[in-house]
Amino acid sequence: MTLSQKTGLRETKRRLDRRVLYFSIKGNTLENKPVENCADLVNQDFCFTQEERDALYKTIFNRRDVRGQFKPDAIPDEVLARVLQAAHHAPSVGFMQPWNFIVIRSKETKLRVHQGFVEANEEAAKLFKAERQETYRNLKLEGIKESPINICITCDRNRCGPHVLGRTHIKTTDLYSSVCAVQNLWLAARAEGLGVGWVSIIKQQALKDALNIPDDIVPIAYLCVGYVSHFNKKPDLENAGWRKRLPLEDLVFFDQWNEQRNAEEDSLIKQIELDADFSEQFMQYDENALE
Amino acid sequence: MTLSQKTGLRETKRRLDRRVLYFSIKGNTLENKPVENCADLVNQDFCFTQEERDALYKTIFNRRDVRGQFKPDAIPDEVLARVLQAAHHAPSVGFMQPWNFIVIRSKETKLRVHQGFVEANEEAAKLFKAERQETYRNLKLEGIKESPINICITCDRNRCGPHVLGRTHIKTTDLYSSVCAVQNLWLAARAEGLGVGWVSIIKQQALKDALNIPDDIVPIAYLCVGYVSHFNKKPDLENAGWRKRLPLEDLVFFDQWNEQRNAEEDSLIKQIELDADFSEQFMQYDENALE
Repeated sequence: MTLSQKTGLRETKRRLDRRVLYFSIKGNTLENKPVENCADLVNQDFCFTQEERDALYKTIFNRRDVRGQFKPDAIPDEVLARVLQAAHHAPSVGFMQPWNFIVIRSKETKLRVHQGFVEANEEAAKLFKAERQETYRNLKLEGIKESPINICITCDRNRCGPHVLGRTHIKTTDLYSSVCAVQNLWLAARAEGLGVGWVSIIKQQALKDALNIPDDIVPIAYLCVGYVSHFNKKPDLENAGWRKRLPLEDLVFFDQWNEQRNAEEDSLIKQIELDADFSEQFMQYDENALE
Repeated sequence: MTLSQKTGLRETKRRLDRRVLYFSIKGNTLENKPVENCADLVNQDFCFTQEERDALYKTIFNRRDVRGQFKPDAIPDEVLARVLQAAHHAPSVGFMQPWNFIVIRSKETKLRVHQGFVEANEEAAKLFKAERQETYRNLKLEGIKESPINICITCDRNRCGPHVLGRTHIKTTDLYSSVCAVQNLWLAARAEGLGVGWVSIIKQQALKDALNIPDDIVPIAYLCVGYVSHFNKKPDLENAGWRKRLPLEDLVFFDQWNEQRNAEEDSLIKQIELDADFSEQFMQYDENALE
């Protein structure tokens, strides 16, 4: 059975289940009462307040891959410095910190990278069939020239010599560390009101040539960064009908690959289905900005 | 010149520079006044309050790779569901959402994974020289058995067929998407008061065998998750003297690889050096818990 078939079957069941669940909660018949804070369980001062926790979820649920809404306003150094500090505090295998941050302000450099995008994008468009190709060509997929700052985050795989604690058996963990830095930067930028767009439609070699990156350094992400006219409520590709968000409960397995449960069998799945709209409560504030 | 040599030279200069910079700020002679919020620049309701922004930075700076401090307390389904939603709202190339979440509760499965860790760890330890090897063997590097829940986050590279928007030229972007989910989960867990430890000392095949993961699925991260006795102020490997945090300003280049500036030449570098202790203000609350 494919994922989408399973999703279809589950959707019907989910709607029925949810009515029962809401009823149960109203009648206070659920065994587990909602836990509001870790302090309910562990009496410690390292617990966050609900406001702090909500701010984190607000950031995560409102982060978008921004391509078309950049404004030319300069990013103050104070803001950029904070965002880079957030990236630098990502986890890294063996505390390797394999990242560098190439901050691109030069118009000429941006134009070179943009040329690399145009060439790769033309190749990529042709891989999609006729109807899909038209949708593809109407998508705005980068903001290289419009965003005031571009940042390339890289991975220096030799930073700590050949033997890195934790990297011996899974060699890609240093690349993953640099990706964690990307995600930290992205979230910090969102909290600062900055949009970030990840440009992956470019050949690695074209990017390396444009930025003079040596052979042994891996460019992980090329990011467009700037203030924006607005943030969209949903991802651009969801708005464009390119693809839908998958139901989380279909992606959760137990103890073994492909071992699923349903809401009747498992309280976690029940809870995930009940909280399916959890992200919605953090999104009201930009309702008017929805395209 | 190696990075550490450069760092040494820069350190002396930085101390001198910082004195001048603090003096300048006290005298209000810096051109750019600190910008407190994106609303200063863009009059929009999608800007976060300073409290929200600070909560995000607090989460980022206090996230730790936890190995030794897990408590057996069960994680409520409400909390786990929220943390998984955060992971599911990570960015993904072509909105591919290539992740699955294998939630491991079974003691037997944990023991199998732990056995894989023990074997890999013995191999890894031998790669370090005598003195370093002793330090290595004294490090606590996983909490597989102690943490109540383990979660394996995977990447299904075939989820959207052979042609994925944005993955044509950089094939690893789907793996990177799953890493972004890891980082979202990690941050959400921290805000919930949950510790997370990433176990990378294990052979991919041993992990696949233990969890029955098919050949075409890539395990990205094996995470130990649970409430903790405390969070350490610094990363375990920094506390153990294994490696220091690098100065951020040494990792920032401009327009081209290896093109650096110093604080006199560039206002961003000046700002990064001035804000070197930015993360410190978010850490007071667990001072007593510092090991």
